[in-house]
Amino acid sequence: MANAPDTTSIAGYTIFRDDDYDSVAAISMMPRGIPHPLDQLSIKEIPAAAQLMREYASPKTLKFNCITLLEPKKNEYHAFRQGLAPRPDRRAFAIVIERETQQVTEVVANLTTEKIEQWKDVKDVAPTLTLEDLDVMERVARDDPRVIRACKEIGITDMSKIFLDAWAIGVDERWGFERRLQQGLAYYRASEFDNQYAHPLDFSVVVDTETEEVLAVDVRYVNGERTAPAFAEHNYLPQFIGDQYKHDRLKPIDITQPQGVSFRVKGNELSWAGYKMHIGFNYREGIVISDVRAHDPYEDRERTLFNRISVVEMVVPYGCPEKPHHKKHAFDVGEYGTGLMTNSLKLGCDCKGVIHYMDGVMATSSGEAAVVKNAICIHEEDNGLLYKHTDFRDGTVISARDRKLIVSQIITAANYEYGFYHTFTLDGTYKLEVKLTGMLNTYCLHPSEEAAPYGTEVASRVTAHNHQHIFSLRIDPEIDGRNNTVVESDAVPSPAPVGSAENPYGNGFLARKRPLRTALEGATDYNHETQRGWEIINPNRQHPTAKKPVGFKIVNNSCPPLLAQPGSTVYNRAAFARHSLWVVPYRDYELFPAGDYVCQSTGETNHPHNKGILDWAARDENIENTDIVCYLQFGLTHFPRAEDFPVMPAEPVSIMLRASNFYLKNPALWVPPSAICVDSQSRNAFSTACCAGSKGDSSRL
Amino acid sequence: MANAPDTTSIAGYTIFRDDDYDSVAAISMMPRGIPHPLDQLSIKEIPAAAQLMREYASPKTLKFNCITLLEPKKNEYHAFRQGLAPRPDRRAFAIVIERETQQVTEVVANLTTEKIEQWKDVKDVAPTLTLEDLDVMERVARDDPRVIRACKEIGITDMSKIFLDAWAIGVDERWGFERRLQQGLAYYRASEFDNQYAHPLDFSVVVDTETEEVLAVDVRYVNGERTAPAFAEHNYLPQFIGDQYKHDRLKPIDITQPQGVSFRVKGNELSWAGYKMHIGFNYREGIVISDVRAHDPYEDRERTLFNRISVVEMVVPYGCPEKPHHKKHAFDVGEYGTGLMTNSLKLGCDCKGVIHYMDGVMATSSGEAAVVKNAICIHEEDNGLLYKHTDFRDGTVISARDRKLIVSQIITAANYEYGFYHTFTLDGTYKLEVKLTGMLNTYCLHPSEEAAPYGTEVASRVTAHNHQHIFSLRIDPEIDGRNNTVVESDAVPSPAPVGSAENPYGNGFLARKRPLRTALEGATDYNHETQRGWEIINPNRQHPTAKKPVGFKIVNNSCPPLLAQPGSTVYNRAAFARHSLWVVPYRDYELFPAGDYVCQSTGETNHPHNKGILDWAARDENIENTDIVCYLQFGLTHFPRAEDFPVMPAEPVSIMLRASNFYLKNPALWVPPSAICVDSQSRNAFSTACCAGSKGDSSRL
Repeated sequence: MANAPDTTSIAGYTIFRDDDYDSVAAISMMPRGIPHPLDQLSIKEIPAAAQLMREYASPKTLKFNCITLLEPKKNEYHAFRQGLAPRPDRRAFAIVIERETQQVTEVVANLTTEKIEQWKDVKDVAPTLTLEDLDVMERVARDDPRVIRACKEIGITDMSKIFLDAWAIGVDERWGFERRLQQGLAYYRASEFDNQYAHPLDFSVVVDTETEEVLAVDVRYVNGERTAPAFAEHNYLPQFIGDQYKHDRLKPIDITQPQGVSFRVKGNELSWAGYKMHIGFNYREGIVISDVRAHDPYEDRERTLFNRISVVEMVVPYGCPEKPHHKKHAFDVGEYGTGLMTNSLKLGCDCKGVIHYMDGVMATSSGEAAVVKNAICIHEEDNGLLYKHTDFRDGTVISARDRKLIVSQIITAANYEYGFYHTFTLDGTYKLEVKLTGMLNTYCLHPSEEAAPYGTEVASRVTAHNHQHIFSLRIDPEIDGRNNTVVESDAVPSPAPVGSAENPYGNGFLARKRPLRTALEGATDYNHETQRGWEIINPNRQHPTAKKPVGFKIVNNSCPPLLAQPGSTVYNRAAFARHSLWVVPYRDYELFPAGDYVCQSTGETNHPHNKGILDWAARDENIENTDIVCYLQFGLTHFPRAEDFPVMPAEPVSIMLRASNFYLKNPALWVPPSAICVDSQSRNAFSTACCAGSKGDSSRL
Repeated sequence: MANAPDTTSIAGYTIFRDDDYDSVAAISMMPRGIPHPLDQLSIKEIPAAAQLMREYASPKTLKFNCITLLEPKKNEYHAFRQGLAPRPDRRAFAIVIERETQQVTEVVANLTTEKIEQWKDVKDVAPTLTLEDLDVMERVARDDPRVIRACKEIGITDMSKIFLDAWAIGVDERWGFERRLQQGLAYYRASEFDNQYAHPLDFSVVVDTETEEVLAVDVRYVNGERTAPAFAEHNYLPQFIGDQYKHDRLKPIDITQPQGVSFRVKGNELSWAGYKMHIGFNYREGIVISDVRAHDPYEDRERTLFNRISVVEMVVPYGCPEKPHHKKHAFDVGEYGTGLMTNSLKLGCDCKGVIHYMDGVMATSSGEAAVVKNAICIHEEDNGLLYKHTDFRDGTVISARDRKLIVSQIITAANYEYGFYHTFTLDGTYKLEVKLTGMLNTYCLHPSEEAAPYGTEVASRVTAHNHQHIFSLRIDPEIDGRNNTVVESDAVPSPAPVGSAENPYGNGFLARKRPLRTALEGATDYNHETQRGWEIINPNRQHPTAKKPVGFKIVNNSCPPLLAQPGSTVYNRAAFARHSLWVVPYRDYELFPAGDYVCQSTGETNHPHNKGILDWAARDENIENTDIVCYLQFGLTHFPRAEDFPVMPAEPVSIMLRASNFYLKNPALWVPPSAICVDSQSRNAFSTACCAGSKGDSSRL
């Protein structure tokens, strides 16, 4: 990038300042012409919004916690899309902290009219910890005399070898919302690239983010003794693996797309194989997929599927009840921001084939545009068999290959990484696959301690605690129109007993269906015994042959119950994780089930400025044949294995929504088969020309 | 294949006769030199075995139901492998039917000594229906006057348009084991390649396989009326789709391996990435993977994982209680033979990249070698992220790619297809993925009938009934040695209440473990609430740091409960499907949980010649720290969707076994990373040289 502007970097982001604007062609999110109403704020809009807010607040000085697109209200946007209303104004939403008083304020700036439309002070809340905020921890803790003394007591005097991962506080009764808190988990590194998670230390630190004070250094004593660090090294980087790589063992697998990709990108609008959607991004949710539509090959019209898809929360409760581990239950979306933690991706590192990248545009604390280049990866993958059938009589064989469109991002949340792969396939399926990798959170064991039952000793005197990962996927469905219903479906034996006239041989079984009528009914759980599923239907559209309402079914059998007990801190804070599914009526700007402000939250309901899923469900409003939103919880329970150390092999977990009596029939019959074989001689003896019926090169399709 | 022998074809197989043997280099299963003791019988051994049996039986004449390798007993084989005993003799096992009396006999022929070692008559059993057997149905039924009349009554006089899918009988009280029965499900085709499943007919046929008699034509009357066929056509073959293919919509994705594959094949022994195994195949189980070992990079030795892996049974119970649908519960492994139904595969049709094929060798009813060419596909696939971690402080990024080794086969079971993908990955995981595709079994609806609640009307007046697919994966584990134990693991909250000294914040949770001690305890079920898992451990080997026995965990949350009621026909016949897991002690030649003879079985226990899982479990023998076998049930419950018609998009379901405290640490650290980036400036700003640390071409690894 010889002509790239001479940009600077803050907290890892590429920072754009006013005088950079003329040479930013490399920035994919820079609108060319008029932005789509759902486009991220651009690198020009971010500082413009900041400037409006600064002027409004003057002479107070502001720290910007976030500046992000305020999406148009649903009615406003849809009216515009249908040509019934003017283009919505561009608006920025910001959470600002007044530097002098630490007052938290929610601001809306109208960028079209250049007016501040809202300036709302909020209280008893703690905004997201940005990467800039988190950078405070290590800087101030390393110099703190109590930290230095805590290290010296266990034989460490070179403070440059001490590292502190900054985490949200989780819970700490010693302070409330009067301070923005973070905790620091301490590690040791023997050398520059040494894996610190092999050397966890026995103290933790609490810091005030705004005043940059160390409030507490909590040293753990076991039988009145400190725990000496485990100094044995466990590394995975090349400088340590060295000649243990087996370079000749795996021959290359090349994946190429000589004719390029099959999708089209226009601005941030993406179309592929009949699907159309808009790709957004923000500091908190990361990828937002909006306005998902599909061309129906049988009705020859565009049908709406989902208004908006995003991962709106997650929680990683750790299961060791001993202090300080009770404070570890990371809400990576709400406490840190999935967008803020997003990796910049590079071809060949994470995906193969031809990749289209999009950048993520966010804001620094001083209101500059902070860009993660190549934040979003859009690519295709072969997906194996789409369908196959052999007619055993005449040897007719047909098979076609499925294809994935994947919109992905990878985040680094201190030790862990999460890859989010939003995937569409040709058969009418949307799947969110999450891959968990990176590093286990570790802790030291005193010689008198065992890791069991709350952890696994992954290296000598290093324990990794039991934990869960529970994600909340928010689906704002629009199944063939706005008014939808969720129907719960249980597979049950026929009620008629074996031998009865209705069920003589006892094989009868059926789907017992129950529409979820109000929001309290909408809070429901997976049931293995009945293979419970749910369908999001449009009760106003009947499938012409199936004579059932058109729908998409939710396939989710990876939804672990929350193991923290009722009444526990996590149970209170992560109420969303108490159920596999919540369904509530749509309301503009209700997005985050653990609250808008997750840091230091207690889970209290009826909070004046921090409502969440319990509040929305408690309204117990109608959710039948109306505009609804679904929160789908999925994830896994992780009892660490030695194999997860020192770096964890990716563990996948996924959830799917599949067309179910939505299309007249198989929606992928337009896909040219990869193989057709008509051989009347034999069902198995293929002639060499058996794939000739396919138009394309069969090795490619 | 210009030089291929001039072979003939029976029931779709390539048939080799004596004079073909000199030119069979194309047959991969032809042993060159001495066969491995687990190799399939060769195309020379099959007829040699038949000849020995014919001579023994003379003057009686024999119909061969199967001729297959009798694998050596485990002790015999292992003693040989360890150099402690001589090479086991080659033995053929056959089930023969005496043509005159229809007496069923189990025969063992020693091919090394050329002696018949066993000649055991069995009774009250019905052997597998081979494809040759199934070919009887359509041939005899089409000419039957009752069938002709049944067709005429609904307006069909051209009998060449009538097709009958032959199925095992399921249940029919009118006859017992004195006859080998099959049922025929009737369809109509409007033209040569028309999809018959769009035109199911309202009668079914029962045929005696041996006498080739039509025993019954069961016509269904609704309110005293016949049901007229649905004549509307619903096709998916190119001759019908024609210009509806969208050839330009999907650009090719090419997958190439310019340096070839990373695995080595020597005879039927396969080695890849430290794994070693033997690939076998037989008429019933199809693929058999034996002697699975892995090189441990830390202990630098070969460690045993699994003695034998195969899919030993499956059942597809249909849920419509009305006659004749109560007879539909296909046991595709035991009733028809997964090997017998195997597709011949062709590059580009089903897998991509560089493929190594193996043939399947079976026997015809007259004792000739019947070969499915390219029955087994062995290939590699890229598997996305193996691991990734970004150090947020210094921008160090490392990521590596995972790789699959896949040993697969695809079968056609009349209407349905199943793809079985035995998959090994670099992280120490074995996964069996099954993809279900092909055609739904359909039936006609009388105008007075609705499809609900037992089916879905996938096209006008065509219903597809609710059904389940439950597979039984047999794992004979050898986790670091022969003596293993299965430990059940339930994720549960700490027993200490919230606020107690042991669990002050209520977040404590742990794995409650229970070793399964006897075979009755070994019959156990998945539990969603506790995220139940199982570990197959070797209690005699402790992990050095985790201080737990080494093991592999079973990950199976796709194990639907059998929905047929206790006491129902299916419940009795498919006893294996009553539990997610059965663990029994190993005994030579105990393989098939629904019995050796599944056709016409009733599920009766203590049958003199047909024992199954209930009998083995009832012995209630010790299964702790001994040689055990696990039967793992998994599958899905299928309420058909309109989208599954006329040809079904592949639906995947899988089960995994993962190293769990088996290896000292991540077993894949030897895999060269695809990307390494050391950039101390910024966590996100990659330099263009950031992948230079990788030895290979990063776009390939």
